[in-house]
Amino acid sequence: MQVAYTTAEIAAFIGAQRIAGSTRQPVRDIAALSSARPGDLSFLGNAKYRSQVADSAATALLLPLDYTGEPKPDQVFLFVDNPSVALAKVCARIEQALWPKPLPGIHPSAVVVPTAKVDATAHIGPLCVVEDGAQIGPGSVLQASVFVGREARIGEGCWLMPGVVLGAGCSLANRVRLQPGVVVGSDGFGYEFVKGRHEKIPQIGVVEIGDDVEIGANSTLDRARFSRTVVGEGTKIDNLVQIAHNVVIGKHCILCAQAGVSGSTTLGDYVILGGQAGLGGHITLGKGSKVGGGAGLASSIPAGAYVNGTPAIPYMLERRIAVLQQRLPDLFKRVEALEKKAE
Amino acid sequence: MQVAYTTAEIAAFIGAQRIAGSTRQPVRDIAALSSARPGDLSFLGNAKYRSQVADSAATALLLPLDYTGEPKPDQVFLFVDNPSVALAKVCARIEQALWPKPLPGIHPSAVVVPTAKVDATAHIGPLCVVEDGAQIGPGSVLQASVFVGREARIGEGCWLMPGVVLGAGCSLANRVRLQPGVVVGSDGFGYEFVKGRHEKIPQIGVVEIGDDVEIGANSTLDRARFSRTVVGEGTKIDNLVQIAHNVVIGKHCILCAQAGVSGSTTLGDYVILGGQAGLGGHITLGKGSKVGGGAGLASSIPAGAYVNGTPAIPYMLERRIAVLQQRLPDLFKRVEALEKKAE
Amino acid sequence: MQVAYTTAEIAAFIGAQRIAGSTRQPVRDIAALSSARPGDLSFLGNAKYRSQVADSAATALLLPLDYTGEPKPDQVFLFVDNPSVALAKVCARIEQALWPKPLPGIHPSAVVVPTAKVDATAHIGPLCVVEDGAQIGPGSVLQASVFVGREARIGEGCWLMPGVVLGAGCSLANRVRLQPGVVVGSDGFGYEFVKGRHEKIPQIGVVEIGDDVEIGANSTLDRARFSRTVVGEGTKIDNLVQIAHNVVIGKHCILCAQAGVSGSTTLGDYVILGGQAGLGGHITLGKGSKVGGGAGLASSIPAGAYVNGTPAIPYMLERRIAVLQQRLPDLFKRVEALEKKAE
Repeated sequence: MQVAYTTAEIAAFIGAQRIAGSTRQPVRDIAALSSARPGDLSFLGNAKYRSQVADSAATALLLPLDYTGEPKPDQVFLFVDNPSVALAKVCARIEQALWPKPLPGIHPSAVVVPTAKVDATAHIGPLCVVEDGAQIGPGSVLQASVFVGREARIGEGCWLMPGVVLGAGCSLANRVRLQPGVVVGSDGFGYEFVKGRHEKIPQIGVVEIGDDVEIGANSTLDRARFSRTVVGEGTKIDNLVQIAHNVVIGKHCILCAQAGVSGSTTLGDYVILGGQAGLGGHITLGKGSKVGGGAGLASSIPAGAYVNGTPAIPYMLERRIAVLQQRLPDLFKRVEALEKKAE
Repeated sequence: MQVAYTTAEIAAFIGAQRIAGSTRQPVRDIAALSSARPGDLSFLGNAKYRSQVADSAATALLLPLDYTGEPKPDQVFLFVDNPSVALAKVCARIEQALWPKPLPGIHPSAVVVPTAKVDATAHIGPLCVVEDGAQIGPGSVLQASVFVGREARIGEGCWLMPGVVLGAGCSLANRVRLQPGVVVGSDGFGYEFVKGRHEKIPQIGVVEIGDDVEIGANSTLDRARFSRTVVGEGTKIDNLVQIAHNVVIGKHCILCAQAGVSGSTTLGDYVILGGQAGLGGHITLGKGSKVGGGAGLASSIPAGAYVNGTPAIPYMLERRIAVLQQRLPDLFKRVEALEKKAE
Repeated sequence: MQVAYTTAEIAAFIGAQRIAGSTRQPVRDIAALSSARPGDLSFLGNAKYRSQVADSAATALLLPLDYTGEPKPDQVFLFVDNPSVALAKVCARIEQALWPKPLPGIHPSAVVVPTAKVDATAHIGPLCVVEDGAQIGPGSVLQASVFVGREARIGEGCWLMPGVVLGAGCSLANRVRLQPGVVVGSDGFGYEFVKGRHEKIPQIGVVEIGDDVEIGANSTLDRARFSRTVVGEGTKIDNLVQIAHNVVIGKHCILCAQAGVSGSTTLGDYVILGGQAGLGGHITLGKGSKVGGGAGLASSIPAGAYVNGTPAIPYMLERRIAVLQQRLPDLFKRVEALEKKAE
């Protein structure tokens, strides 16, 4: 990063509610409390690190309104409702400066079929392929080496990073961001076992991705056997996540890295899957339910449930059992002692 | 999808054994029993949904011969041996209409080295790379941005989707289908620890994929340290699956999403791995054996075995223990009570 | 492979300390002890296979100095300190013959922005994209369809295989090898929950990869929220591994396939993660610690620790509990019997 902001500029970006201390140093980088050096901006995003503020060498610190310490000389405290949100605003500003949005137009090396409808304000980067009847909406960016299949549709303000594959007939609504290597619209995994062989069931449905969805690098989303695989508005999916055919994911869900969802499973709104969690097929997760990291869930859970472990059970029970399991060696000894006594 | 078939046309495609009811409506889409609307084709593929047939609004329904209900007005029942297979036939017909096979030839943007042997009936799509001495057989399709390395061989009727990488010397037999982003022939993960450093062991073997194999999006198959990593005829591999070097997979296996197989492990024919299952290295899974979803298996299992859990144990035992584990809090109390009594 | 070496040539490559037996056959392939045929080179890399040496049909065998058997007629034993290392030397020789290093230069189909600095000895293969201000060092190879983002830096002797994405501002030191489909520099997975929506926290840091690192196919490494995600010198990462933002990995670590490391976690030098292991965020793994395959670790562990299971606990304890768990059905019966007696 090669940036420099005065603390006054930063206070203005973030709408600081109170400022304490002063400095003439510009801010040139961002760092965690404990590793920050002069010239850095830091922040208290998690109460657990509160004690590190006093020792931080950062030039400017974003702090919650209830923080009570005083800045050191040549150091500025900027008080805000939510330091993490404030930091995000600073980062967004830096992001714009560092990676400006590419200009509209189609790179000469891209292969765009004439029947495709590319909005004049869209950017089709080098070595992209856009097939028959595909539509690319206003301001959307295909960065490089992106594949958009037949009749696929991309709304406004989407960003498809290098190596993304959007299969035929699949659609992205608006402001969807696909990290590098994402595959949307691979075939669902469906076979019938006939005379000793697995006969392929054609997968002729699509994938529909809602507004403001983000999908992480190399994640895969299968097209429906028929009809639709759906990812609801505002849902965020991490890297290397697998979404099988006919899955329906609600709005504003969080799916952490390497989670997997089997076919025809439905997630309500605001569901959270921990990393490497695995869901069986044809089940339903109620609104706001949560599955712990690495958990394996084979049956439906109601709204608000929080499950953990494999097979997944209610979180508090799972935690209790995990502790008791470590006491099994002792339990076996105790039972043996009882048996001896009882002889 | 923009299709329309009469119910008589569909009855003919699938060889319906009996027809009940009638309609003049064409079929324009396919949907599940409970979500079907007029104009949709639906089917009873799983006995569990039998009760939904009577309420389904589908215009045409594919039903097993033993189904005893009657169609509603303006609705058609088509009776067949296996409704799922019949549906697959309809889907295959739709698939052909929607995604016609590309014409033979090499797209001008593809980079095909003159020493490569590309059959005149093959299709090399835009921005593909085909290196020295590679062979592409009759009717095979490299859709777009596919990489085929030196001396790699592709048989007849294969389909490599966008972003596939087929490494040097690796081979696909006939009718192999590789979903987007599949990597065949990455280096095996092999190092010797010498003087505090991991020294790379060159991986100079290949990967050989048999007839009618399908591999899911972004799955990875490593080339052998030497000799061959093998996937047998008819085996189907889902998305994000990892196959390590020198693994030998038999015929007609099923490997569900995110499963992983460590080096030099051998799977017999008809083995099934559940999603996220993990296999240790240098073990053997007998013919027709099955590993549950998320299970972790570190030792060999005989033909027909069905194991689950981590460490994986026989399925029925694992189920029983999973139930008993949930009763551990109670067991600890019971032992405590016994101890008090015994004092 | 189409190679042929005399046994004398091989003895010279590897610096054999002793030779027994003789043959006029050249070595044309490499195979495991049990599957080797005449014309093959084989080796005893693992004492477990010692009994297979006597029956091996290999023409030449690499054996440890303490092996005591005699070769058959027309067979040669080559004795060395470490047969696996010796084999690696043979393989490296074969590798050079089979896959010669590409010549320097930029393929005409590559899209290299004029502001990029490409060393004259580097090779930019077909259909690569190199963006503004990127630097490619001496002897580095971008094989095909590789993307190198703005201001990214690649040192000397690196090899980026087909489909690799190296994001803006990220850097590879020297002799880094990225297998096909690796993504370095995708956005970290960071959101703030504000008014019912997940607001993206811009991820403006980078990824820094040290000397001699190798990363397996389709693995993903996220850029830091700010500052750096780091992979230390000599670390080897297998396929489909997920490294989240702000992770710091030490030197000479081994991360097996499908392992996942959550955000801001730190691995000391020489840490080993088994396949499918999952680490929580914001924890520290001490130098030389080891996490078993499939284990789930949510808290820090000290140097030298070896943990297993989910939740991960010390390896020996986990093994003992795994055994006791299988005896739970029996334990429940024993407690029941005690209860009856105590009535």
